[in-house]
Amino acid sequence: MSLPKQVKIVEVGPRDGLQNEKQVVPAAVKIELIERLAGAGLPAIEVTSFVPARWVPQMGDNSEVLRAVLSSPRRRPGVAYPVLTPNLQGFDAAVEAGATEVAIFGAASETFSQKNINCSIAESLKRFNVVADAAQALDIRVRGYVSCVVACPYEGAIDPEKAAWVAKTLHEMGCYEISLGDTIGAGSPASIKRMIAACATHVPIGKLAGHYHDTYGMAIANVYASLELGMAVFDSSIAGLGGCPYAAGASGNVATEDLVYLLHGLNIETGIDMDKLLEAGQYISQQLGRKNQSKSARALLARRSAA
Amino acid sequence: MSLPKQVKIVEVGPRDGLQNEKQVVPAAVKIELIERLAGAGLPAIEVTSFVPARWVPQMGDNSEVLRAVLSSPRRRPGVAYPVLTPNLQGFDAAVEAGATEVAIFGAASETFSQKNINCSIAESLKRFNVVADAAQALDIRVRGYVSCVVACPYEGAIDPEKAAWVAKTLHEMGCYEISLGDTIGAGSPASIKRMIAACATHVPIGKLAGHYHDTYGMAIANVYASLELGMAVFDSSIAGLGGCPYAAGASGNVATEDLVYLLHGLNIETGIDMDKLLEAGQYISQQLGRKNQSKSARALLARRSAA
Repeated sequence: MSLPKQVKIVEVGPRDGLQNEKQVVPAAVKIELIERLAGAGLPAIEVTSFVPARWVPQMGDNSEVLRAVLSSPRRRPGVAYPVLTPNLQGFDAAVEAGATEVAIFGAASETFSQKNINCSIAESLKRFNVVADAAQALDIRVRGYVSCVVACPYEGAIDPEKAAWVAKTLHEMGCYEISLGDTIGAGSPASIKRMIAACATHVPIGKLAGHYHDTYGMAIANVYASLELGMAVFDSSIAGLGGCPYAAGASGNVATEDLVYLLHGLNIETGIDMDKLLEAGQYISQQLGRKNQSKSARALLARRSAA
Repeated sequence: MSLPKQVKIVEVGPRDGLQNEKQVVPAAVKIELIERLAGAGLPAIEVTSFVPARWVPQMGDNSEVLRAVLSSPRRRPGVAYPVLTPNLQGFDAAVEAGATEVAIFGAASETFSQKNINCSIAESLKRFNVVADAAQALDIRVRGYVSCVVACPYEGAIDPEKAAWVAKTLHEMGCYEISLGDTIGAGSPASIKRMIAACATHVPIGKLAGHYHDTYGMAIANVYASLELGMAVFDSSIAGLGGCPYAAGASGNVATEDLVYLLHGLNIETGIDMDKLLEAGQYISQQLGRKNQSKSARALLARRSAA
């Protein structure tokens, strides 16, 4: 049982995190945050979402933020700046703003798909296929997401085969990486491992990513269990930004600082500078006027201020 | 790699938790809390500490609390009610109050031992030996603790052999169980596994317990890694009571609710009723006027109030 030597972290705070914060953050703050995250060594930062502003007002400044982040001298060579594009309209707007990587977002739960995007999983996949084809025609990379891979807020436990089927379909569409989302954070290492094993029979493990919410405090253990299966890409959110829309007061994405603390403790390379990461986390926590949700960040900062 | 089918949880909230809370909790609240914990199915609850009140004012009511908890009809058959007894004086006072199980508390770090109890590790072990002998003469069970097993707030990383030597010595003294404490929560699964492997060469794994603080958010992952080595006893604190005296604002013990959520998710029996456990956690959180620190508790309670 040997763990990966290197892990890639995909920072999703500016999108998945801020989308679930009540307050709408000014574009200038988002741009500054993304610059700081890139400066800390994050190799991939999800910038925003191209959905109608009437659905997600927090992402109403999507074009402005993406344009600014991709402009010189802000854009960092080697860093990926994906944006979420749920349909062709969003994709076209993203391309107009200069997107070089997009992401599509399916679910492993029928009820969640119906309630979240108003169509069946099969219908959503057809819609995504149109986006994937359009992206490939323009040489734009496509990342795939699957939400509710182990549990759904409406259906409860999800059959691992259902997650595997969606992952396989996204992979066949040409997604270079499939991020497996425990959207409500209800998974524990056993259910996470069963789900990954099912997905890995259809998609090479090197193309699978773990996207775990920390709603029940299990995310770091779930990352560790995933590493044991050879998974080497994880999504996380700076300062644990974002909450859980299905449980008021509960936590959101696993915090990037906690993830980096775990990985460095396991002697796994991430390319990330923890000091700069802490500064980025403090920056956005102060802007939001809330406590940093990362336990590692709080402990490291307390130690630092005591020294 | 098969995990244990059953795990014993040792609840340390009333002692290790409340000792690290700033406010002194009234005896009546402690007694009510301990009753609720026993009612939730916890098989062992550390009640208090027999140290001078001038050192730890939070435990100044030790005799009163222990007497009340052990009195009929409060005392539950089959539940262990250990108390901390750092020396013979404390042991005598505990016996007078009716103690049937005591605990002694060594460190794997020389500097920590000096700063915490004013003597070297070797000297402390001699002192504990006197307590252990006195306990055995009265047929009182003795549990051993080792603190700073992977890291020390003063020395940094601790050699696993140092922890193993202290664990071995406590075992040879007759301790029926040795609880291995990551006192500052700095460990990650790799260092925790190295430490357990070293201890298990001297003490059977069935007699070792994991006592992990969640300062850096690693405790649940560390429990999972320990389960993989066959460890089947863990200490935890209801509602994540207690902070970290070495990092202001940081978390304390792993929360019992999070530990139970993990174990039940792994299909491991604990004998604990989660609903009653949640009620105990809410009771003490309300008494302290603070937010429940367990993410599982917060998510389950939010789900419950939404339903």
